[in-house]
Amino acid sequence: MNNKYINKKVILSSYPVGLAKKNDFSVVTEEIDTLNDNEILVKTKYIGIDAALRLLLRDSDDFLFRVKKDDLIRGSIVGEVIESKNPKFSDGEYVLGSLGVQKYCVSNGEGIEKCDLNLANPELWLSGMGLPGLTAYFSLLDVCKPSPDKNVLIIGAAGAVGSIAGQIAKLAGSKVIGTTSSDEKCKWLIEELGYDHAINYKNKDWFEELSAVSDKRLDIIFDNTGGQVMDESLKIIGMKGIVLLCGSTSQYSENEIKGPNNYIWLGTMRARLQGFVIFDYEDRYEEARLNLSKWLNEKKIKMPTHLVEGDVDKFPEIFEDLYKGKNYGKFVLKLND
Amino acid sequence: MNNKYINKKVILSSYPVGLAKKNDFSVVTEEIDTLNDNEILVKTKYIGIDAALRLLLRDSDDFLFRVKKDDLIRGSIVGEVIESKNPKFSDGEYVLGSLGVQKYCVSNGEGIEKCDLNLANPELWLSGMGLPGLTAYFSLLDVCKPSPDKNVLIIGAAGAVGSIAGQIAKLAGSKVIGTTSSDEKCKWLIEELGYDHAINYKNKDWFEELSAVSDKRLDIIFDNTGGQVMDESLKIIGMKGIVLLCGSTSQYSENEIKGPNNYIWLGTMRARLQGFVIFDYEDRYEEARLNLSKWLNEKKIKMPTHLVEGDVDKFPEIFEDLYKGKNYGKFVLKLND
Repeated sequence: MNNKYINKKVILSSYPVGLAKKNDFSVVTEEIDTLNDNEILVKTKYIGIDAALRLLLRDSDDFLFRVKKDDLIRGSIVGEVIESKNPKFSDGEYVLGSLGVQKYCVSNGEGIEKCDLNLANPELWLSGMGLPGLTAYFSLLDVCKPSPDKNVLIIGAAGAVGSIAGQIAKLAGSKVIGTTSSDEKCKWLIEELGYDHAINYKNKDWFEELSAVSDKRLDIIFDNTGGQVMDESLKIIGMKGIVLLCGSTSQYSENEIKGPNNYIWLGTMRARLQGFVIFDYEDRYEEARLNLSKWLNEKKIKMPTHLVEGDVDKFPEIFEDLYKGKNYGKFVLKLND
Repeated sequence: MNNKYINKKVILSSYPVGLAKKNDFSVVTEEIDTLNDNEILVKTKYIGIDAALRLLLRDSDDFLFRVKKDDLIRGSIVGEVIESKNPKFSDGEYVLGSLGVQKYCVSNGEGIEKCDLNLANPELWLSGMGLPGLTAYFSLLDVCKPSPDKNVLIIGAAGAVGSIAGQIAKLAGSKVIGTTSSDEKCKWLIEELGYDHAINYKNKDWFEELSAVSDKRLDIIFDNTGGQVMDESLKIIGMKGIVLLCGSTSQYSENEIKGPNNYIWLGTMRARLQGFVIFDYEDRYEEARLNLSKWLNEKKIKMPTHLVEGDVDKFPEIFEDLYKGKNYGKFVLKLND
């Protein structure tokens, strides 16, 4: 198979300062080697664009799993097995894995899951059926426990995780409020996803609006962004409330991450700021996916997936757009070849 | 009983800027009225000096239970009932209550508890048998759950709550590390209270020392101070660890409270920052006091009480000394009249 496949991959060319720019990335090509025993060749079909990646693109050993200069950019993909020397995988099967922003990948199959296309279309395995959906599912149902008497705030409500989380909280009967970055996205949250209220945090009086619609009590703050929106919201955390720390996108581009100055209200209100990592639930992914797929097919939830078509070299542009808040749900690059 | 008793009480004369100074307080006198039915007259014997008071001394409606200008200074006291028109109380009984920094108090008995002097000496009802001891007891045993395989950090280890909390964590078999503000207090923590390690956070390399003695893993951070010591410690919070938010003394004198910038590690480590309020446990105080008294009598714990003798006008000076970190355990003013 020598020379048959030419891989094209996105690498880090310089550590970004502030928001990651196009020229912080480069595209390189390489020949794919012949497969060894037990290996498979995967052709990427869809690439998920993850906000958390920005945290890893820094010249600091503070974080594990860093992407260093000249490293392949990390990313989850859905692809097709086009050659297999591994008995567990067959040609034509669709798989999901953290295989990086590239066109082809040779793998021994470790950490790769199969996509059951009877449950959902392939691109949805990067949104509602993938880590965003699984994160929303377990962090809400297992940790936050929404119920009809609860007020739930989703910060970053139109994002990959937030857009699913709000719908699951609605299914549980809670009053669901979301914050996002534009009036258009507010409209979308309410009309498409069924949020009770949606607030554009760029409006001067967003916090007054939030206080009013929640009657100054938030039982669950589901936070994807950190920063000022989360910090202000802490002032109205309810008694024994929970602030689920799902992500901190507002801080990933900062040189110095800022903590929530209003944390002292957690004390007064016997509330907690709770860390969460989806990988703790790996042995229950199947259960979640069956439920998520069922809800999808019964039209109880949507799995918002913001598809953009192009080649792998479109990645830097979409990553920039993600940080500009242009996505409605999960940003996914669909490879057009 | 007109004119028989002249009360002397400490009031707030101006809102402090930074640390509270002596001239932020005034002492005023007044005659005690004749008792009405159901009332008791309590003569203060001991006044507890509470760091959390500083948070209430501010010209802001942000906090409940503020002490406003010319208000009596809040404080827990142990006193003797010297007259009673309330059938539930008799002359000579010792009581504990939040009766303020004053020599006499007329009360209808609400919110006042009796001190069983068979369990512990009167002054200990403001330290180990009072809110500091009860707070340490329930927040550790009910929420933090120390065990022999755990590393416990007590921040503000020589304070009223910290000095008891460290001993309870030791009783549970944990490795206990404390931070405090002087080498003398470090020595005291180890030699008198049985801490495994004590670190002077004013030393330049305190965090390296903490990392080394804890093997870079803190399962329980019991925080009384907030600020930089807590913030840095978050970097080595252990997997599924807990940061118990007991107090934030380092922030009470600040105009703007600062949050923990390293909060993002709570996410990575599935850890939580947990608020706690002792009043949720009121119906279990008796259980805790029986155990605390038993441990005291069996010499398994000490109830560090830093007694200073004087009149109520000594309060401002001791409050200043508290914020200078001069106390070993609970600062208590023993009234010498």
